[in-house]
Amino acid sequence: MTQKVSPLAPSILTTTPPLDGVRIATAAAGIKYKGRTDLLVMCFDEPVSVAGVFTRSLCPSAPVDFCRRNLEGGKARVLVVNSGNANAFTGKKGSEAAELTAQAAARAVGCLPSEVFLASTGVIGEPLNASAFAHVLDGMVGEAQADRWESAARAIMTTDTYPKLTTRAVKIGDTDVAINGIAKGAGMIAPDMATMLSFICTDADIAPEVLQSLLSKSTGPTFNSITVDSDTSTSDTVLLFATGRSGAPRITEASDKRLRAFRKALESLMRELALQIVRDGEGATKLVEITVTGAASNRAAKRIAMSIANSPLVKTAVAGEDANWGRIVMAVGKAGEKALRDRLEIRFGDVRVAVHGERDPDYSEAAASEVMKRPEIPVKVDVGVGKGRATVWTCDLTREYVAINGDYRS
Amino acid sequence: MTQKVSPLAPSILTTTPPLDGVRIATAAAGIKYKGRTDLLVMCFDEPVSVAGVFTRSLCPSAPVDFCRRNLEGGKARVLVVNSGNANAFTGKKGSEAAELTAQAAARAVGCLPSEVFLASTGVIGEPLNASAFAHVLDGMVGEAQADRWESAARAIMTTDTYPKLTTRAVKIGDTDVAINGIAKGAGMIAPDMATMLSFICTDADIAPEVLQSLLSKSTGPTFNSITVDSDTSTSDTVLLFATGRSGAPRITEASDKRLRAFRKALESLMRELALQIVRDGEGATKLVEITVTGAASNRAAKRIAMSIANSPLVKTAVAGEDANWGRIVMAVGKAGEKALRDRLEIRFGDVRVAVHGERDPDYSEAAASEVMKRPEIPVKVDVGVGKGRATVWTCDLTREYVAINGDYRS
Repeated sequence: MTQKVSPLAPSILTTTPPLDGVRIATAAAGIKYKGRTDLLVMCFDEPVSVAGVFTRSLCPSAPVDFCRRNLEGGKARVLVVNSGNANAFTGKKGSEAAELTAQAAARAVGCLPSEVFLASTGVIGEPLNASAFAHVLDGMVGEAQADRWESAARAIMTTDTYPKLTTRAVKIGDTDVAINGIAKGAGMIAPDMATMLSFICTDADIAPEVLQSLLSKSTGPTFNSITVDSDTSTSDTVLLFATGRSGAPRITEASDKRLRAFRKALESLMRELALQIVRDGEGATKLVEITVTGAASNRAAKRIAMSIANSPLVKTAVAGEDANWGRIVMAVGKAGEKALRDRLEIRFGDVRVAVHGERDPDYSEAAASEVMKRPEIPVKVDVGVGKGRATVWTCDLTREYVAINGDYRS
Repeated sequence: MTQKVSPLAPSILTTTPPLDGVRIATAAAGIKYKGRTDLLVMCFDEPVSVAGVFTRSLCPSAPVDFCRRNLEGGKARVLVVNSGNANAFTGKKGSEAAELTAQAAARAVGCLPSEVFLASTGVIGEPLNASAFAHVLDGMVGEAQADRWESAARAIMTTDTYPKLTTRAVKIGDTDVAINGIAKGAGMIAPDMATMLSFICTDADIAPEVLQSLLSKSTGPTFNSITVDSDTSTSDTVLLFATGRSGAPRITEASDKRLRAFRKALESLMRELALQIVRDGEGATKLVEITVTGAASNRAAKRIAMSIANSPLVKTAVAGEDANWGRIVMAVGKAGEKALRDRLEIRFGDVRVAVHGERDPDYSEAAASEVMKRPEIPVKVDVGVGKGRATVWTCDLTREYVAINGDYRS
């Protein structure tokens, strides 16, 4: 496993301030990793509103099953996350480990197990020995502090090369509210799913069903618009908690106009976290932004964009800094959505390489190559059918990806 | 581009004998490659029955459009194939190049352009200058010989590291008939499509509509059951020609019982060619046979098998000789087909690694690792739902794949 920080990492780590009503503790429980934290507890002093989106995998992990059940209550008091072991495909032992963790956390906080939320990330199929760390939860809850968002982001890393966190400040009515979020993910990142782990908190006061609507709608153009390797985790979880401590008015309708700025800020925060994940894509050296326009619908545009983003031949060409737009044509063709070959236009950055179904007569290989040398490459494709559009993000496919994943388990 | 022969190449090149009614010529036309043949002409002395299956890409190449039109006539006199340039996404110039080639071939043979079949393989998006080689077709037709199947297979190679060809002998009624086939393909090899280039000839006497039924049915479990990189070519073409020269009785009904042995032989030949393609998968060091049983239907089984076969994380684990069955679980989960997590069974070779939704308690890591070291790895997955089953073939994903595809165009 490489320890080198991704060349696409943000140059400055965002300082994420405390958020009213949230206290954090981390610990090195030795679940798999040595010499680093692997256990995160996020405590809410009062019951908070909670919303969640999860993997669409038909073989979800035990914590995903557990959270889905508890989400029906809409209330949370504590979140427990471990890295190093996904507690996925671990059968009855897996759900027992989740229950044991939840009971220990509930005892420590003084709440019901139905107010506990769990996530696990790491190797699939290894039994998780929860008894090895459940006893430390009590102490962690006791010493949890507000000012530990960076530590939280570090404790949930697996093959990540840097911690992922950010913050937004926005108003609801006349009141300042904040949104803080952390995320993890570098491989097994796939399209059209609630992807990876992310935990977001706000001190706004928002009813659970409104919070769920906000989260579900914001997931599509953010976490569900990124792909590293087309592989979907069994453990993908995004949870959004609202503590209500800001003093802002309680919002009980998704249509409430006072949510407008909050909605934009939430989506912007989620997009930033999603892009931080792509920037840490295993082995990545290039960030690729793919915008498809002129499709039959937005949904069709997204399918075409994801077909390009997931193509190994496109991704290896990007790694080789090769302006190989023929492979873009191939990926458009295999997407299964309507595209007019003879109206297709393809641009790398501002360089139009193809127009009217063939190579642009004015196309300069030198100019296109210049774009391919950049660390961030915009690819624009118009398929000439309608008005549908979508933007997705991916990274290149390098020898390093193969090296990282050829010996992850061992 | 690597020139080293794939370590999975068949140890002996099949000697493919002449087939009555078929003459072959190849030439070095310098379309892209230097110092090797890149043009193939296959002449039929009389009009022969022809059947074809093609890419489902919505951006097909000019030769694919051309063949689709001519297939309606069901008769062929000549096949012309070039390597080095796919004549795909080449707009009006592309269809003009196809027409020009067809006219030259028709003149050389003395037939109609509607009896000419074409295929092109290589770089997408570069104009194909047909006038640079059309004039040599006349000479090639004149000097074509029956005993040149290996030369034919060599002339259509691109990133292939060895020529792909084979033969079958079978009876129709009491008469011996033969089937010869060649194929090319190493990258841009994708699931559930008429994949890559393959040209198959028989001296049986079979009506075009029967030939089409035979070919279409045999494509599903052979060429459409392999994947190298999940990427689908714009140029995929399989053509089957029947010269009728064997003296065997003419077959005009697909249900004719005399076809039974022929049908099996054809499917067996197509499977052998399909496997030769996977064995030459770009950068491949392992052949992986994935069998899914217990699915809701055969179709569901194939989707699950292809989800496993196309997973970069499964393929890199195989490259690293890592018995990482957690990634098989992941790929089953993302396939979107019904699978009972708590009944899932996974085997590498004869080693059962997972049972009843968790790690097999008797599972030996050493025994599983032993299987992963082999050049050919059988993976068996039972998803515990029904009776559907499917087998597909793929190869591992290595650094070499990335290297080959990072600089193919340049």
